Amino acid sequence: MKIPSFFTDSHIALAHGNGGRLMRELIEAIFARHLSNELLDTRVDAACLPFGMDSGEIMVTTDGFTVEPLEFPGGNIGSLAVHGTVNDLAVSGATPLYLTLSAFIEEGLEVALLDRVLASMAQACQDSHVKVVAGDTKVLRRGQGGGIYFAMTGIGLRPSHLRLGVDQIRPDDLILLSGSIGDHGTAVLLAREQFGLSGELQSDSASVLPITQALITIPGLRFMRDPTRGGVATVAHEIAAATNTTIRLKENPITIADPVRTVCAMLGYDPLYLASEGRVIAVLEPAGAEIALGRLQGLGYADAAIIGTVVCGRPQVVLETELGGERILPELEDDPLPRIC
Amino acid sequence: MKIPSFFTDSHIALAHGNGGRLMRELIEAIFARHLSNELLDTRVDAACLPFGMDSGEIMVTTDGFTVEPLEFPGGNIGSLAVHGTVNDLAVSGATPLYLTLSAFIEEGLEVALLDRVLASMAQACQDSHVKVVAGDTKVLRRGQGGGIYFAMTGIGLRPSHLRLGVDQIRPDDLILLSGSIGDHGTAVLLAREQFGLSGELQSDSASVLPITQALITIPGLRFMRDPTRGGVATVAHEIAAATNTTIRLKENPITIADPVRTVCAMLGYDPLYLASEGRVIAVLEPAGAEIALGRLQGLGYADAAIIGTVVCGRPQVVLETELGGERILPELEDDPLPRIC
Repeated sequence: MKIPSFFTDSHIALAHGNGGRLMRELIEAIFARHLSNELLDTRVDAACLPFGMDSGEIMVTTDGFTVEPLEFPGGNIGSLAVHGTVNDLAVSGATPLYLTLSAFIEEGLEVALLDRVLASMAQACQDSHVKVVAGDTKVLRRGQGGGIYFAMTGIGLRPSHLRLGVDQIRPDDLILLSGSIGDHGTAVLLAREQFGLSGELQSDSASVLPITQALITIPGLRFMRDPTRGGVATVAHEIAAATNTTIRLKENPITIADPVRTVCAMLGYDPLYLASEGRVIAVLEPAGAEIALGRLQGLGYADAAIIGTVVCGRPQVVLETELGGERILPELEDDPLPRIC
Repeated sequence: MKIPSFFTDSHIALAHGNGGRLMRELIEAIFARHLSNELLDTRVDAACLPFGMDSGEIMVTTDGFTVEPLEFPGGNIGSLAVHGTVNDLAVSGATPLYLTLSAFIEEGLEVALLDRVLASMAQACQDSHVKVVAGDTKVLRRGQGGGIYFAMTGIGLRPSHLRLGVDQIRPDDLILLSGSIGDHGTAVLLAREQFGLSGELQSDSASVLPITQALITIPGLRFMRDPTRGGVATVAHEIAAATNTTIRLKENPITIADPVRTVCAMLGYDPLYLASEGRVIAVLEPAGAEIALGRLQGLGYADAAIIGTVVCGRPQVVLETELGGERILPELEDDPLPRIC
């Protein structure tokens, strides 16, 4: 087999990991091309395993974690790994049950740091009612790792009747966002000493299971996704590309915390492309969206808001700005923040 | 919680990844202590998930792969990952079905190399009738990775009646080995340019499913394990420690290929501690062991042999040498070969 002609890069660049176009092309050109089978869908958060059980469908997801620094305000790579894995199952409509952990640890890592990371991981497992059932440890030579890398696989159970996916999305559906954006990305950014900034901002890294469980009983729920790498703009692009529609987002209802706004203005980042690790984007038919919004606000998600609409038109993402203008949000090209999750 | 007093190292050393005593202590002191639950058993290859199915038990395993060089005679990190994961399920008595892949790729990696690795992975999946159903890709900054690290999780189905495990082992049980030892470790060693050696030796990396499927129907099968990191001696130590018995191994029936013998003699390695990636150690009651040996030889595993016995006595591993002497095989301390798998 020949590498497809659309993939012209001869060497891997950081941008191939950014969650945007280049990553999608790498995955299509190399991973999906070789490994393709009827169960592998690179556009979904979790795969459904056909075990034919009465009690539901077994769902599985996997994720790598490389965040730098390993500890940041609001969490560390241990809690982040659990939240990230649990959330991929949650947004697919499943209840997470079991996790596996593969740890790559760099020679020279402080044992006390590893201990703190594992303590946070354990606490996050307890909070989300999941268990680590299998693990593996590899030690990397000094200079061949970033302290700790984790790979986590999550297994959960989804009600058999639930039909969620981009293929369920229709024009006029509304887009709901569960909270403020960019808190995780900005908190990690601030925790990197080289920026010489600090603040009170905490990562939003958390389980979104309370959100997804509140939403899956609402008729007209089409799709859920957590806006991690590449942020809200990248999820909007995925929806636009998969449904061949235009996604119109409104800037006004999107909550951006003041420190996130300040840091982005100073450093030239767009918060719409920054990672959240405890938020959900949900697409619902209009009546369902109103019910969903009320339900999340009732649960204390005060910043939840309807932030956009799916409309007929060519696949693109348009932002209606606060000043009444419009701008096209391009697909992510460069990686603004490597090792954010 | 305080780090247990038996764990006195303040920083991670390469030897914490070697599959021996130091790795076991790290896992007990940090990973198992924080993550412990009734399903997590750090001594088994795969965990059983209580989904309550009629058709069998769902088994799950996870493994990290960091082999250097990424390509070696007889395979590469792609085929190795599939074989390693499939084999952990196979020795637990399960039929492997589904895999997940988490890839950590270093910036600057040649795309053509990644493509070759994925092609081998796909071929190994096809050979073992398994499918990759979910994946994730992270790109590591140049100098923070070893080219490619993979984490793979495997999910399989095990007949409900099958009872395998170290707890099934009894004194007088015999120890069966399916083939020659140390081929993988030596092949990888030779592939590292710094040794300036080369030869015709190939890694034994392969699926052991034909072996385990032939053995699981034999009454009196107690336990199976693939002797990867730490080799045959390390598996023997695990059995001795878990069963509180002495493991007596015979040097004579153990097949060691000539190039393995030569390289070990030149470089000072003991093949009993070198990794195989396509062999099985099985423990059976004596009558079953004879049946098993015949069956494997009938399938073409010409080097299969009964290599030892479980005897009452203090937990240790004793080797009866070819010259009629005896030597105690110590538990692995240093890591003779980092990044072997």
